[in-house]
Amino acid sequence: MKLESYVVGRWVAGEGEGRPFVDPTTGEELGRIDATGIDGAAVLDHARSVGGPALAGLSFAERGAILKVIADTLTANRDAYGEIARKNSGNTVRDAAVDIDGGIATLKVYARLGQSLGEAKTIVEPGTEQLSRAGTFAARHIWTSRPGAALQINAFNFPSWGMWEKVATALLAGVPSVAKPASATAWLSYQMVADVIAAGVVPDGALQIVCGGGQSLVSALTPFDSLAFTGSAATGATLRADAAEAQPRITIEADSINATILGPDAGPDSEIFALAVREVVGALSVKAGQLCTNIRRVLVPAAHAEAFRDAVAAKVAALTVGNPADQSVRVGPLVDLGQRQAALDGIEALSREAAVVAGGGIPNAVVGADPETGAFVAPTLLYCADPAAARAVHEIEVFGPCATVMPYESVSDAVALAARGSGSLALSLFSDDAAVKRTAVLGVAPYHGRVMSVDGEVGRDHTGHSIVMPQCVHGGPGRAGGGEELGGARGLRLHMQRTAVQGGPGFLGELAADAVEATL
Amino acid sequence: MKLESYVVGRWVAGEGEGRPFVDPTTGEELGRIDATGIDGAAVLDHARSVGGPALAGLSFAERGAILKVIADTLTANRDAYGEIARKNSGNTVRDAAVDIDGGIATLKVYARLGQSLGEAKTIVEPGTEQLSRAGTFAARHIWTSRPGAALQINAFNFPSWGMWEKVATALLAGVPSVAKPASATAWLSYQMVADVIAAGVVPDGALQIVCGGGQSLVSALTPFDSLAFTGSAATGATLRADAAEAQPRITIEADSINATILGPDAGPDSEIFALAVREVVGALSVKAGQLCTNIRRVLVPAAHAEAFRDAVAAKVAALTVGNPADQSVRVGPLVDLGQRQAALDGIEALSREAAVVAGGGIPNAVVGADPETGAFVAPTLLYCADPAAARAVHEIEVFGPCATVMPYESVSDAVALAARGSGSLALSLFSDDAAVKRTAVLGVAPYHGRVMSVDGEVGRDHTGHSIVMPQCVHGGPGRAGGGEELGGARGLRLHMQRTAVQGGPGFLGELAADAVEATL
Repeated sequence: MKLESYVVGRWVAGEGEGRPFVDPTTGEELGRIDATGIDGAAVLDHARSVGGPALAGLSFAERGAILKVIADTLTANRDAYGEIARKNSGNTVRDAAVDIDGGIATLKVYARLGQSLGEAKTIVEPGTEQLSRAGTFAARHIWTSRPGAALQINAFNFPSWGMWEKVATALLAGVPSVAKPASATAWLSYQMVADVIAAGVVPDGALQIVCGGGQSLVSALTPFDSLAFTGSAATGATLRADAAEAQPRITIEADSINATILGPDAGPDSEIFALAVREVVGALSVKAGQLCTNIRRVLVPAAHAEAFRDAVAAKVAALTVGNPADQSVRVGPLVDLGQRQAALDGIEALSREAAVVAGGGIPNAVVGADPETGAFVAPTLLYCADPAAARAVHEIEVFGPCATVMPYESVSDAVALAARGSGSLALSLFSDDAAVKRTAVLGVAPYHGRVMSVDGEVGRDHTGHSIVMPQCVHGGPGRAGGGEELGGARGLRLHMQRTAVQGGPGFLGELAADAVEATL
Repeated sequence: MKLESYVVGRWVAGEGEGRPFVDPTTGEELGRIDATGIDGAAVLDHARSVGGPALAGLSFAERGAILKVIADTLTANRDAYGEIARKNSGNTVRDAAVDIDGGIATLKVYARLGQSLGEAKTIVEPGTEQLSRAGTFAARHIWTSRPGAALQINAFNFPSWGMWEKVATALLAGVPSVAKPASATAWLSYQMVADVIAAGVVPDGALQIVCGGGQSLVSALTPFDSLAFTGSAATGATLRADAAEAQPRITIEADSINATILGPDAGPDSEIFALAVREVVGALSVKAGQLCTNIRRVLVPAAHAEAFRDAVAAKVAALTVGNPADQSVRVGPLVDLGQRQAALDGIEALSREAAVVAGGGIPNAVVGADPETGAFVAPTLLYCADPAAARAVHEIEVFGPCATVMPYESVSDAVALAARGSGSLALSLFSDDAAVKRTAVLGVAPYHGRVMSVDGEVGRDHTGHSIVMPQCVHGGPGRAGGGEELGGARGLRLHMQRTAVQGGPGFLGELAADAVEATL
């Protein structure tokens, strides 16, 4: 099998031999991916000249209806996607659901948003600015669809969700997408787009996918295009430099060293303590830890740090690693042997500052697979006794099932340690103390795109540290890339232009009457 | 006189010989500017470690009160500033007022905004996102002050307004400013900051100014800092590339080839026609045309194009050019001989595609000054008969008293021609036809940060094509830099972090009670 690209209205095979993609459980080659010879400039031009006008001619409600059909199409093929995710991503059934159902759910949220925005094609912000004393000159701020293409370079860990959350927001905003999945796991993205294109509901040019290298796309960007990238901070910085002259709009969502904080009030016998243990164990098992929002640092009050460490370590030791086809397996392989080596190197670097409490390398016992040829890493817990003096634990993201517990003295110390991540996607706080919650949440907020506070009122009713809810903004400052996606209508911002329209109240009223009022 | 820099709590002279700054009317050296030896890293660190915490400890109302004192201090010294503007910028009294009073007015708008935001230090967006069926888990989006410094690199044409509009928004957001004025006209910025610092109301570290080169500042930026640049598109792209690795937040407001459109309904005898003529004549006189928002292209229905051209040309011929100290002078010099040469080169380039109707080079008659040693350029009107085939008129900004009239056939042609600017700061439309207004405004909106519609209801009661109102966003997509400043509370966005806070409704309610509700 060789993955083709859907560009300029048809499926096209690359002209090269291609790069293999594999089953990470066995190392077996599943197929090849190649985009040699595909002209990025032509792809983007097709998006701008055909897809853009087609979408711009539709109302928000009509675009939302397309998203609904996409979601329904994906739902109908859900089992086949789970198979691909197992084979190509090493996903357990639960892991695959996070990606596949996460994509479908996000599409549905944006489908509903489109419906609620209704028959308008433009958005007007609430409020009128009076600019003259006589009241005959004023201003309103309106949002219109940008006339460019949205290039979306996705990460290997979310071939479904990562693609659809970007496509959904662009499409609803009236902007055509060019999806560029990561080669290692592009099969799922490819199959989904193939099914959606076959369903015939997406206007020509509104959704294209390039399976293979994307350099010719990046170099063909123009100022009215956008570039949304999810991946490593290093690649993000390179893309930013590459695009500096063309100046497309850029949003980057990069790996980050996210933290969770256990409040000083949450002793070992408390329900809050148990909830935090459960969350950290989840971080060391779901998707083999390959989530960019995942908990990497666990900040625990010094008095409870060893108890917390031991409670997590006991559960981690019981996690079954192996072939995701085996129902007893909780932790599958990483995506490939390159990622395994990177994770092993990272654990090695962390272990110079922190003691390995559980795991620490290639697992001894692997169910239904060969631990050498499969890309397995044992769920690994480390303990860093002096986090203020440490550096690697705040700077190196091990993109796998790995986290480090570290003690703190005061809540302000915990806030300062969290900030040592230099900007992260998500932080969670487990505490039932009102003062702790307020101090910690307001203290870490400038460094985070999302903060989850779990207290007695919330209990188990939360959605999880790592789960990105489409109603909430996703992205983080600093090292996390400085981007922002999703957040309901806020996600449309990347794809629309805000314009201050100054004029007479009569004309402004007419413009507003045709628009829908919202804030992005 | 050698301009010093106010850094790390004291006035410091550069260690080099410095670069001269001149009176553009005479070419006489007025003084020198130099920042050799000033350590940009130390300046930014002082802002972050001393200025930031001081501002963050104040409420919006308290920060607004500081802005009010700044505005009052500047008002008290207004006449002295007018003198500096005349000597160093070649400003007439009216030109100087645009810059000086514009800065003061913007400070006052943000002072009032601070008062209205009140005793809070954080902002909460309207609306709560329900994230669980039981209603015990939800999210609100809050904004907190970013913990970095705001580096503000300003343009030579607005040493007052350009600096204060940036300082005002940063200070109100709780973020310390480092102002880096353009060397040619830094004297006014320097004197204003000197007066404000002497007034003793700005917390230590909250406002610094570097007079001289700023490279050591740019290279010391970190991800939580911001870089706001106003100037040429080319320098903007260079700064973007320089900062790609550090990834500060960047907003760029670059030169653009702004247009005005006369509606097909506005015949030569109409009031709308007269209003448009008046606006274009203003564009060729105020500040000798050195406004980044200024009209560069005038799109006129083919049937009225020659009448319009002739009406403007007649008035332009009557504009007196010369020494701004002479009260009869309407058009002063450009800022220096380098800018004069750039403008002459630009006119030369445009004249290959367009006929010179008025002006076109160094003026023959200059009142009270030598036309060779002073940086004078005659107000210049060109006429481009085939704008669809032309390129230079859409791509070259002559930063001086220069505009090109061009005919169009249909309103959609006019929209397409306006878009040929590849993204602009401002466009104005003069029409009384409802369909024309709607088609043109919605058509050009994606390419513009601001659109002004002048119709019979507005008449003379508008604020002008080029004038940036602090209540409206300022900036434009594409070539204009893709930035956004001002717009009331929207201007705080650059300096604050939006965070989705997920938690129990009780806790979220407490956070919201301490914040002020607003949308940015």
